Amino acid sequence: MTAIDDTTARSTKVQALMSRMTLDEKLAQIVGFWEGEEGDSVAPLQGELSSTGRLDDAMEHGLGHLTRVYGTNPVDTDERAAYLWQRQRSLVTGTPLGIPALVHEECLTGLSSWKAATFPAPPSWGASFDPELVEEMGALIGRSMHELGIHQGLAPVLDVVRDPRWGRVEECIAEDPYLVGAIGTGYVKGIQSAGVDATLKHFVGYSASQSGRNFAPVHAGRRELQDQLLVPFEMAVRDGGVHSVMHSYAEIDGLPVAADDALLTGVLRDEWGFDGVVVADYFGVAFLQLLHGIAADLGDAAAQALAAGVDIELPTGDAYLAPLKAAVESGAVPESLVDRAVARALAQKERLGLLDETFEGPSPTGVDLDSPAHRDVARRLAEESVVLVANDGTLPLDPTDATARVSVIGPNADRFAALFGCYSFANHVLAQRPGVELGFEAPTVLEALDAALAGTVTPARGCAVDDDDRSGFDEAVTLASESDVAIMVMGDHAGLFGRGTSGEGCDRDDLELPGVQRELVEAVLATGTPVVLVLMTGRPYAVSWALDRCAAVVQTFFPGEEGAAAVTSVLTGRVNPSGRLPFSLPRSSGAQPYTYLHPHLGGDSDVTNLSSAPAASFGHGLSYTSFTHTDLTADDAPTDGAIVARVTVANTGDRDGDEVVQLYGRDVLASVTRPVAQLLGFARVQVPAGGSVTVELTVPTTRLAFSDRSYTRVVEPGTVELWTGTARDREAQTVLELTGDVHPITGADARLSSARVVGA
Amino acid sequence: MTAIDDTTARSTKVQALMSRMTLDEKLAQIVGFWEGEEGDSVAPLQGELSSTGRLDDAMEHGLGHLTRVYGTNPVDTDERAAYLWQRQRSLVTGTPLGIPALVHEECLTGLSSWKAATFPAPPSWGASFDPELVEEMGALIGRSMHELGIHQGLAPVLDVVRDPRWGRVEECIAEDPYLVGAIGTGYVKGIQSAGVDATLKHFVGYSASQSGRNFAPVHAGRRELQDQLLVPFEMAVRDGGVHSVMHSYAEIDGLPVAADDALLTGVLRDEWGFDGVVVADYFGVAFLQLLHGIAADLGDAAAQALAAGVDIELPTGDAYLAPLKAAVESGAVPESLVDRAVARALAQKERLGLLDETFEGPSPTGVDLDSPAHRDVARRLAEESVVLVANDGTLPLDPTDATARVSVIGPNADRFAALFGCYSFANHVLAQRPGVELGFEAPTVLEALDAALAGTVTPARGCAVDDDDRSGFDEAVTLASESDVAIMVMGDHAGLFGRGTSGEGCDRDDLELPGVQRELVEAVLATGTPVVLVLMTGRPYAVSWALDRCAAVVQTFFPGEEGAAAVTSVLTGRVNPSGRLPFSLPRSSGAQPYTYLHPHLGGDSDVTNLSSAPAASFGHGLSYTSFTHTDLTADDAPTDGAIVARVTVANTGDRDGDEVVQLYGRDVLASVTRPVAQLLGFARVQVPAGGSVTVELTVPTTRLAFSDRSYTRVVEPGTVELWTGTARDREAQTVLELTGDVHPITGADARLSSARVVGA
Repeated sequence: MTAIDDTTARSTKVQALMSRMTLDEKLAQIVGFWEGEEGDSVAPLQGELSSTGRLDDAMEHGLGHLTRVYGTNPVDTDERAAYLWQRQRSLVTGTPLGIPALVHEECLTGLSSWKAATFPAPPSWGASFDPELVEEMGALIGRSMHELGIHQGLAPVLDVVRDPRWGRVEECIAEDPYLVGAIGTGYVKGIQSAGVDATLKHFVGYSASQSGRNFAPVHAGRRELQDQLLVPFEMAVRDGGVHSVMHSYAEIDGLPVAADDALLTGVLRDEWGFDGVVVADYFGVAFLQLLHGIAADLGDAAAQALAAGVDIELPTGDAYLAPLKAAVESGAVPESLVDRAVARALAQKERLGLLDETFEGPSPTGVDLDSPAHRDVARRLAEESVVLVANDGTLPLDPTDATARVSVIGPNADRFAALFGCYSFANHVLAQRPGVELGFEAPTVLEALDAALAGTVTPARGCAVDDDDRSGFDEAVTLASESDVAIMVMGDHAGLFGRGTSGEGCDRDDLELPGVQRELVEAVLATGTPVVLVLMTGRPYAVSWALDRCAAVVQTFFPGEEGAAAVTSVLTGRVNPSGRLPFSLPRSSGAQPYTYLHPHLGGDSDVTNLSSAPAASFGHGLSYTSFTHTDLTADDAPTDGAIVARVTVANTGDRDGDEVVQLYGRDVLASVTRPVAQLLGFARVQVPAGGSVTVELTVPTTRLAFSDRSYTRVVEPGTVELWTGTARDREAQTVLELTGDVHPITGADARLSSARVVGA
Repeated sequence: MTAIDDTTARSTKVQALMSRMTLDEKLAQIVGFWEGEEGDSVAPLQGELSSTGRLDDAMEHGLGHLTRVYGTNPVDTDERAAYLWQRQRSLVTGTPLGIPALVHEECLTGLSSWKAATFPAPPSWGASFDPELVEEMGALIGRSMHELGIHQGLAPVLDVVRDPRWGRVEECIAEDPYLVGAIGTGYVKGIQSAGVDATLKHFVGYSASQSGRNFAPVHAGRRELQDQLLVPFEMAVRDGGVHSVMHSYAEIDGLPVAADDALLTGVLRDEWGFDGVVVADYFGVAFLQLLHGIAADLGDAAAQALAAGVDIELPTGDAYLAPLKAAVESGAVPESLVDRAVARALAQKERLGLLDETFEGPSPTGVDLDSPAHRDVARRLAEESVVLVANDGTLPLDPTDATARVSVIGPNADRFAALFGCYSFANHVLAQRPGVELGFEAPTVLEALDAALAGTVTPARGCAVDDDDRSGFDEAVTLASESDVAIMVMGDHAGLFGRGTSGEGCDRDDLELPGVQRELVEAVLATGTPVVLVLMTGRPYAVSWALDRCAAVVQTFFPGEEGAAAVTSVLTGRVNPSGRLPFSLPRSSGAQPYTYLHPHLGGDSDVTNLSSAPAASFGHGLSYTSFTHTDLTADDAPTDGAIVARVTVANTGDRDGDEVVQLYGRDVLASVTRPVAQLLGFARVQVPAGGSVTVELTVPTTRLAFSDRSYTRVVEPGTVELWTGTARDREAQTVLELTGDVHPITGADARLSSARVVGA
């Protein structure tokens, strides 16, 4: 444990400030304040816990964070900015230290603020396999935040998906740690390029909760943590240079992370060299007492979290104000521990320029939170993320066929909220404010199809997302039977704490489509009319029954404000689909938990009667053209070096298209069991019809590192099978040897793979 | 690591023997030989692996174990014994060392031999909450084995149930580690009292495999291992004095147990002081190469297993003969490691008297493997294990009512194999030998009811256990509609590797009753005739739908040769039911894994929309009388002492009955998260109608020990909630304080609770 930071590391300015701060002033700098309204409930137990009271009172000794100034109510941006500037000005002028508050906000799928652009949800980023485009999105989000005086965004979520039953899957990027890390690092770089600090969530383990129940205990050993769950966080710290990390609510093998010094200080700071600020997940410090039962009271909770390395309590100072003050004054907590957190908080404000800001100037007005640039990135990302899972040739539709009768059926066909995740402003806030307008354009799939198709487009809702009302079935079936094709737009409604079918606190016991949706699809299938099933979900569902019977299946993950246009472009062939599944499509809820990163015995074997094979593999996705992979080559590589693999990808069809070249490896013999497949690198490449390109992927051997029997992360020499394709299907393959000694990896080793086109 | 045992610990006789043994002779002592027949398949991959060849050749240098002489074919016991004696005699006279083989056999639910008594399956032992009766059973099993020249039994299974989807749940005792340990220790004491060594299976972690798939990787941290999964093994080693332990096939957090020195030597020997023999699960050494991919070849597998502490390779010497010999001769494996295992093997033979046996006398004849004593224990244990889960007053039936029309429906109503588990000779061996008689009396439920009831008893099978044939529904429905009551006997067929619905390699993806059984029950329910649902299963199924709708629900777990009589006795009221659920009855497969030993956040909470509450609690079970618990008292206790709790149990009904008093505790504040309920002790007491007894339970504080943040197992001071009832329902409750310092527990601390009646 790094008990208390070396005080000599503090800047002159921070030292000078701290030398004249009272204990009250110090504590004020390591808490937030959330001006909540009665009935707000966007966080667990918010109603029971949120400090009420007036901001004026909370600011008496200064204030560390202003919590969610824009994000929890539909407020006019100009007015809200003016209010914020005024509050900041009063901190500068009305408190002895004159330090403004750091303003943080949610921003996962775009800034959580009224009328701000809403981008595709994180599984869509994973499906795009395009970190650069995610970085562009992050930069736009950061710029909007910066313009509004927001300094820190509570994103991205780097939890590695382990169980699709969990409601927060829709906030996660993928099932593969490397894909999560690569995309997440792109997001961090983007948002931080605008001068806004990113926050990695949720460090660590949250996604592996028992039976996919939110907050349930995590059964994971040290090796699983080191080799799978921590990997993306390390990438975003070391390669992304992230400035903040949020602890997870999880308890791992009996110890809540918020009290775990070995993770929050040992791994994060001592091992990885993280020098930013660790913030609490909302109410996470108090939860040590209230939910986990490992703290006697809030003072004890504060002491444990502070000692472990939680620097800032959010959203408010339930534990870090009066309870911690009493603990310090009684001698139970050394003030030097408080100083450690304060120094980190002030260093962050110094880096952000906040120690010098006066807020004398005017507050911003007329900021365009949904500019053409936002919409362009939202559209491109949505287009790249649509996954064509199955297609018997029905797709693409001919948009020019004026005689075509197209029915558009399903609860997500004409519902803009179906485009957005649970942390979107629409579903996070507006869902509880009926009558308040969305404030930007978000055409539905029905509207977009109607605009794009020359033929007749006729809608029927058929059923709701999640009830048992079948009264709309007849209309839908009749309509479908009179159509040439039925486009069925099904899936989730994102919400919070049981108000949706996907999202925080919206876990699922089974993995059938919610409500009577499967029944509706099967009723329409029975008409014989070809069904194009468009899934707009937050998690992968068990739809193997549909893969065979539908004419085509298209999977999207809350594709955002331009999502309907993107889906329509794919359906009509204007865009050739190139998204790839960021998760295995599950066979059943009874087969969970599952990860494609399993050793041999986590898959099919002779010793169990059950198949664990997913309905579709991680990485799967079709195109309207066809690709072949040939001539995969890779020389042997030293254990402390890099694998350089080349493969030729030919477009053997008659349309231009993007192929996502995925390079997988399998270490066939190691000192501990290793996964049967592991993503080593990837490249999204454009290949013209009839053309071919040769792609070179350079993979640092650290991608094959794992925790040996002493838990040291090493690269061992030996044979590695290498292939392109998906996790389960090999298009081209080869074998190489890692040579030399066992290589214990360090921070100096590269982690990110790279790719380039070397021949066309 | 205890690298190599101190050679001075070896007896003079063993030292003398070893001093003249060749390497071939040493290796021969640490392997078994299985005379298999073509097509045998009672173990995974047996066909691919089992050494073929002749026993004569295998005996050239002596032989460690003779594998399953009686248990894999229906052979006449007298003939088989004569053959065995002859083989032993030839080892004594025909090999230089003259050491007989140790004969081991399966014996979980009775000796695995043709015509031997078959007792209830282990979950029935758990349901009985009666370790003394299980000890009686163990003694009978041991006596039969001893009479036939068998020295070691491969039982009991002490895996703590974690996921009902797993097929081997039926081989396990319970969901609670203490109940498993208490019952398992009884079994060990019983069998070893007859001079036969017990073998603890499967050390450790096997039951926690991912998604309940057999052999799938185990996600468990060190604390979960120490505080839950290892607990029963420690009890059976320290309190039961067990002589042998079998490693589990499991890989825990990436490391297969067969190669895990920290568990097989560190925990088992260095910490617990185990001085017996560790045997391989069948083919488990070779699996390090074949299934786990951590050994380059069989020599490497042998080296790793031997170094970790696997002393004997079973069933045959795939790795420990030629491959290990080559590894020793090349210097890759020190011969002293071989010697360590040989010394343990010979010490076991010495203790068993095998080093002095000559086999000159006649082999046994006419051994009665199903004596009246066997049948008596089988009956009593079955009677105590029947759990009355729900009852609207329909039960008990009046057996004297000559006008009653009783229909007996279902696939398990008239099938004796339904009474037995997968390791019974009937289902393990005879299931693949059609036409071979069972060889002892095993009346079916239909037969037993027909004999017991004065009224009309009419059968209908209705459906099979596990197919989709509904052609028998009409007959069953018609019959039921003409009956006063329908007794539906449903459930599993135990088998191996996909040949059953329960058993090794018979995992389930969902937890509905197999096949169309639920449909049949619902069809019969629709007639309006009261349905008494008798479940005869190997695992708990998700039957909450039935609890409300059936007139009564009776749960049995393969109740053995006297099981039908026991069920009938309960249905007619001759026996007042007293079994208690050894597992939570699950709500759904989508709620798995689940254990009642969860911290607060593993159950229902405000942060997930889903309930995790089981359909019925661990410990639940009704009686035909009613009990009240009052005046639960317990003084504060020192952390290194014992809790002495007293409670008064009154029988407020009009029938005599047995109550199983279950004492639970909850540590409300600890340094790590603790379960919301934990079984601390129990007592089965007889209470006459209208009477009452006061029961005193003495619980060593070690029952509340857990692994603190440094993984030291300690008892912490603080408040403990105490109650009687079930894991989820409190009949009487109190609170006490554990006082004094934190107490790190040692082997000298008591582990077993005790109980006595102190007043009536």
